[in-house]
Amino acid sequence: MLTDFVKSIPPEKETMKAELAVEREKLANASMKIKVAKLPVMVIFEGWGSAGKGSVIASVIKNIDPRFFEVATTNAEPTEEEKRKPFLYRYFIEIPEAGKFKFFDTCWMQEVTDGVIDGTLSDKDYERRINSINTTERQLTDNGYLVMKFFFNISKKEQARRLGALLASKNTSWRVDEDDLWENKHYKECQKVYDKYLNDTNRSISPWYIIDAKDKKWAELQVLRFLNQGIDTALKNHSLAVPILQNTFPLKQMPLLKDVALDKTISDDEYKLQLKLLQAKLHELHYKLYRKKIPVIIAYEGWDAAGKGGNIKRIAGALDPRGYVVHPIASPEPHEKARHYLWRFWNRLPKTGHIAIYDRTWYGRVMVERLEGFCSENDWQRAYNEINEFEKELADWGAVVIKFWVHIDNQTQLERFTDRQNTPEKQWKITDEDWRNREKWDLYEGAINEMIQKTSTTYAPWHILESVDKKYARIKALKIVIDAIEKACK
Amino acid sequence: MLTDFVKSIPPEKETMKAELAVEREKLANASMKIKVAKLPVMVIFEGWGSAGKGSVIASVIKNIDPRFFEVATTNAEPTEEEKRKPFLYRYFIEIPEAGKFKFFDTCWMQEVTDGVIDGTLSDKDYERRINSINTTERQLTDNGYLVMKFFFNISKKEQARRLGALLASKNTSWRVDEDDLWENKHYKECQKVYDKYLNDTNRSISPWYIIDAKDKKWAELQVLRFLNQGIDTALKNHSLAVPILQNTFPLKQMPLLKDVALDKTISDDEYKLQLKLLQAKLHELHYKLYRKKIPVIIAYEGWDAAGKGGNIKRIAGALDPRGYVVHPIASPEPHEKARHYLWRFWNRLPKTGHIAIYDRTWYGRVMVERLEGFCSENDWQRAYNEINEFEKELADWGAVVIKFWVHIDNQTQLERFTDRQNTPEKQWKITDEDWRNREKWDLYEGAINEMIQKTSTTYAPWHILESVDKKYARIKALKIVIDAIEKACK
Repeated sequence: MLTDFVKSIPPEKETMKAELAVEREKLANASMKIKVAKLPVMVIFEGWGSAGKGSVIASVIKNIDPRFFEVATTNAEPTEEEKRKPFLYRYFIEIPEAGKFKFFDTCWMQEVTDGVIDGTLSDKDYERRINSINTTERQLTDNGYLVMKFFFNISKKEQARRLGALLASKNTSWRVDEDDLWENKHYKECQKVYDKYLNDTNRSISPWYIIDAKDKKWAELQVLRFLNQGIDTALKNHSLAVPILQNTFPLKQMPLLKDVALDKTISDDEYKLQLKLLQAKLHELHYKLYRKKIPVIIAYEGWDAAGKGGNIKRIAGALDPRGYVVHPIASPEPHEKARHYLWRFWNRLPKTGHIAIYDRTWYGRVMVERLEGFCSENDWQRAYNEINEFEKELADWGAVVIKFWVHIDNQTQLERFTDRQNTPEKQWKITDEDWRNREKWDLYEGAINEMIQKTSTTYAPWHILESVDKKYARIKALKIVIDAIEKACK
Repeated sequence: MLTDFVKSIPPEKETMKAELAVEREKLANASMKIKVAKLPVMVIFEGWGSAGKGSVIASVIKNIDPRFFEVATTNAEPTEEEKRKPFLYRYFIEIPEAGKFKFFDTCWMQEVTDGVIDGTLSDKDYERRINSINTTERQLTDNGYLVMKFFFNISKKEQARRLGALLASKNTSWRVDEDDLWENKHYKECQKVYDKYLNDTNRSISPWYIIDAKDKKWAELQVLRFLNQGIDTALKNHSLAVPILQNTFPLKQMPLLKDVALDKTISDDEYKLQLKLLQAKLHELHYKLYRKKIPVIIAYEGWDAAGKGGNIKRIAGALDPRGYVVHPIASPEPHEKARHYLWRFWNRLPKTGHIAIYDRTWYGRVMVERLEGFCSENDWQRAYNEINEFEKELADWGAVVIKFWVHIDNQTQLERFTDRQNTPEKQWKITDEDWRNREKWDLYEGAINEMIQKTSTTYAPWHILESVDKKYARIKALKIVIDAIEKACK
């Protein structure tokens, strides 16, 4: 067993002191190196209660300028608000930014093993969470993160001794709770669960380091050694391309854009009638999904001037403002750009029972970022799979995921651009950038076709909205949204 | 009484329709105007249960592009996490950014009146909250916000009728809860509380508009009219200077920087001994304040190279990393700059029982922003009072607020700059900007003196740390922090 007590032999006192000094100095210097290399370093501490995680973190961070690190302390138990987000949410939003350390005083492990131990997590959910965690750790590593994981290990006897010592003084006895005592009493049982978790998540991209935590200084030295080694390795790997993974998700066959017939229309009368009926229906459904606590994610992409805004308005117009939000997505701000590109979308997930509509989305990675060179080729080539994984996470959480490509032809865009340019009230809607993007129509069309082919999964398919007749596109969108929500509410 | 039922007479059906169309169009156009003028518009909806706030908000936002508005929906009851922040926190972090609307489906009123009605809010706390709310609404207005407040008013009979209608169908009955029925039953009692609140917070900078909400379309029209008028007025006032308020807070007499003796030193042996003793003491106190749920705010300002970083390190080094955070404050990011300048600090408040250390602070407003012209003269002149109000809010919440000015003389700074420049490992610490700021020493000294004189309140005084001998300054800081926390823990 990984957690079988490792009889590690700490160095002699004087040697330890000297080695600690060396490793501390190394870490202090590493801060500047990771800053320059823009390496984000995620350091996860897990382990037995009273194993001394907190005090080793306190020692380790003393070597680092506060501008270069943060400590994340997640409660063992998620809050009611956090329970209304996907399992990974409260951890993922805490990932470090480029060039900084983030120390996690327990991360996604503890919530999972707690769930197994207290019997609230089914085998199936356990498997799913292990899968989510492995996927996320791989995604982070692929995106240039260093993920270091330490498990603080102490024997049953040692834990009992520490708990006893804490309980003996009234200044410290409050730090021992029922769970700590329970864990010690059921040490073997817990060990089995921890061990299984460690094995299930022990991957070469983010392996577990089992720390013999009997002696505090020795534990610190082990952590520092591994951490410094990890940083050295990561700095060497930092600019290397990462292998592109094969798609393993079920895909839906989709047409190429050129094969989409754009002559579909609807009469004004029919439009008015349908709009009223469908909006009323969606309005009622909104309450239903609110009560059933189903989260809904509606992603809009489309050509400039295709009519995204007006389409979104017709969906939003049917909804109770307390239960939905529209996220207009512009270029990322500096603190967003400094993190995994999906971070700003994790941060904007709806809670259960709510609807989030995105006016442009995470697909920017494989369109504008690809074509404008805002990310490397390796980055956007990896992104199809990463996005499929992200959306799978959302679907598994129970979310309805609807993706719209609002489609027009080149000529229609030109007419609309010209109209905007010539109409004073519409001029704010058209910029030089729009004209520049327009010149790249063919490149975009290629990228969009690739995107639609590679990310139209059965659990989060693309829907193409023929929007030369904007009204037709609005009615079609309403029907698709209603249909998807109705299915989910059944 | 403000809420006495106003017998307003809605226009005839056809006139209403025409007027609604006009006002909706006006609002649609106002979106672009507020964007251009960078006017943030905060629209607060309060009122009786079932008065139709939600459905009027839904109608109003239909006229606005989703890029230009958000809806904030705060729970009636704060979550456990929110309860560990100041009362205003969960509302203040929701304020709109420049050029955008934010619609509040209930804001700070409801929590206060609920507290009065269910008897959990004492008279004294009520007074304090009213004062906080009035101060905040004034601060927002002074800082260029338009704050519009609507109270949706219906009679007891009308409310009973609506609740009855909702209860009659099983599709809608879930929307009625105990509190709604209780409110209707105790209408008179609630009305008295609402009325008092409305009177207590009815100021010319952000008056209450009582909306006769008997008819939905009529309610919408009233809101649109007031809102459009409000925007017109705000656009006219937008660039006007605001009167500077006299200081009303108790101030502590403070020396001018030139009169601070900088020759204080401590021997190395004494330093080592004291450091160990004081850090151990602070370590214990940290647990004490954690258990007593006292929040602590430690603000660091000081000359470049004065030794802020090393000083902070000695405080932080004594603390359990799960209970404190250091916030390094750089120039604001775009989304921060687009809001009230204190917003990013509201966002970084500790929770009760935790310590937040700020490496540079909100005082940037009256130092770098003043001297570099990043805000107007009127802005920084107002800021002394605004900051005193902010810190009073924190002190009233129960926070220990400690402010350090880390002080050295001009010659010492030159020596340290030169040393940094000449030492390869320290070069990252010195930039051209540091040298440029140094040329403005005298201007800064004037600004700092003014700041210390005007914001050294008895509840949040400045402490000057003589830091030519950095060790002396560290020991002094530790003593001040320990002393302040000990007093608060008594």
